[in-house]
Amino acid sequence: MRSLALTAALLLAGCASAPAEVAPAPPPAHPPASAPADAAKPPVALQYLYGSPEAAVAVRATNARIVDYAVGRIKQRPEDSVVLAPGAGVDAPAFEPCGNKPFAAVFDADETLIWNLGPMRYFAERGTAFDPKIWDQWEKTGAGKAVAMPGSVDMVNALRAAGITVIVNTNRSAANAKGSEDTLRAAGLGEFKHGETLFLMGDDAGGSSKDGRRATIASKYCVIILGGDQLGDFSQQFNVKDLPAAQRMALATSTGTTALWDKGWFLFPNPVYGPWEKLGWDDAFPSDKQWEPSR
Amino acid sequence: MRSLALTAALLLAGCASAPAEVAPAPPPAHPPASAPADAAKPPVALQYLYGSPEAAVAVRATNARIVDYAVGRIKQRPEDSVVLAPGAGVDAPAFEPCGNKPFAAVFDADETLIWNLGPMRYFAERGTAFDPKIWDQWEKTGAGKAVAMPGSVDMVNALRAAGITVIVNTNRSAANAKGSEDTLRAAGLGEFKHGETLFLMGDDAGGSSKDGRRATIASKYCVIILGGDQLGDFSQQFNVKDLPAAQRMALATSTGTTALWDKGWFLFPNPVYGPWEKLGWDDAFPSDKQWEPSR
Repeated sequence: MRSLALTAALLLAGCASAPAEVAPAPPPAHPPASAPADAAKPPVALQYLYGSPEAAVAVRATNARIVDYAVGRIKQRPEDSVVLAPGAGVDAPAFEPCGNKPFAAVFDADETLIWNLGPMRYFAERGTAFDPKIWDQWEKTGAGKAVAMPGSVDMVNALRAAGITVIVNTNRSAANAKGSEDTLRAAGLGEFKHGETLFLMGDDAGGSSKDGRRATIASKYCVIILGGDQLGDFSQQFNVKDLPAAQRMALATSTGTTALWDKGWFLFPNPVYGPWEKLGWDDAFPSDKQWEPSR
Repeated sequence: MRSLALTAALLLAGCASAPAEVAPAPPPAHPPASAPADAAKPPVALQYLYGSPEAAVAVRATNARIVDYAVGRIKQRPEDSVVLAPGAGVDAPAFEPCGNKPFAAVFDADETLIWNLGPMRYFAERGTAFDPKIWDQWEKTGAGKAVAMPGSVDMVNALRAAGITVIVNTNRSAANAKGSEDTLRAAGLGEFKHGETLFLMGDDAGGSSKDGRRATIASKYCVIILGGDQLGDFSQQFNVKDLPAAQRMALATSTGTTALWDKGWFLFPNPVYGPWEKLGWDDAFPSDKQWEPSR
């Protein structure tokens, strides 16, 4: 999440609204186009992710699936890790071998194990875009102000109880390792140690690509679980520069990757920020689906 | 989705942004507070849901889980439906009996089987709130402009091939039954017939509550699957008027309901609209998690 960008959804806070499917009351009047930054309500993406039972249920169920899968998976020693082998394409995957290595589950941190409530509210209330200097402070000082996501503490505890090492691979900065260790501990997720169970941007020359760090982890562990909120938490092949949106979609839904979702690769919902923020109108809405009412 | 409200996320369209975890490029400057309605990009919640591979993967995986569960579930005749019995609380559920009734799977339509691309783009591009008169036109004329969600066509086809009747229970209006039948058919989801496999608001005196319609369906079918994007697709108990946010959350994550998620009850992601639009800052962001950078 190092280059997190908070955009449209954070710019307009508030605006009265009616609950959907709750009561057939008429929806509210159109709110002003430039609502004040201190408006009464958070933007919808933040309301949904951080506040709704609908999102909490989805996150809890994902954590429950991870535990179910992991406990079943280690009953017989797997031949392969779920980390792609060097040179293997995500559409025709091949994997790092497990050998007799100990088991590990590898997770992103931000919006995968923890929700970053502190800076998300800060940015949204002020109607400001992501500020890397403020984020850097957050990495250093956020302990106690981030929360474990619903079911995440139970999930990591269950994996550890089953003898699986829980490892974090995040694009938080290596320079702020202590802050991130403290943040994870304060959220109730236990001990993570930089270089052993915590891998950070700057640990190698790969920049924001997590592939190199995944390879490092897979050289020591049989990785049975990868968990994240963005496709880059599974392979950097999804994040190739200038990869067209349609090709990124095709890769993520190819036969090869479809076999992995919920079966080693686990994706958490995050509509608040992500690489899809590049998408334009015609990427999200095919032109043949345009519709207008008659007035 | 009858009283759909499109709010903050739809008001500000566009705003340049950097991809997260793709490259460590600095985020964009703060866009103007009142961006033009024809801005370059959709609001983030719409980008995510309708455009991102991250959301497509989550939806496809949910559809795959439904098929896996259903096929396994009917190998032995279940004693109980997953529709709550009258008077049973969601926190201590009891269910309608199955007897020898034929199997059915019951789904919401909007943002559960189909994505309403037509009016969503229309509202968002204009920066307007939900307009029930426009929505009514959409129900009547939207056929061909809504799309089946990722994996939904395969899902309904697999259920039907297994001998399971696929039924829609939606808060679209009974007055527009033909339009909704046409919309579902045009999206590739097959035939739904009002009063037999399509239940609509106005079919009974329950208004937007789907409980009565669910009871009607469960009187004729052994319902093994409920699918939706909002908790009201499972029980109206989640939608009791003035239910405090914390109690709604507690109900949705109670031991009773937790046993049902992914095991009969299947929830699709929808950060674009929902009953959680009522949530204020302190509902989504507990006060003890407030954080500010030092400047």
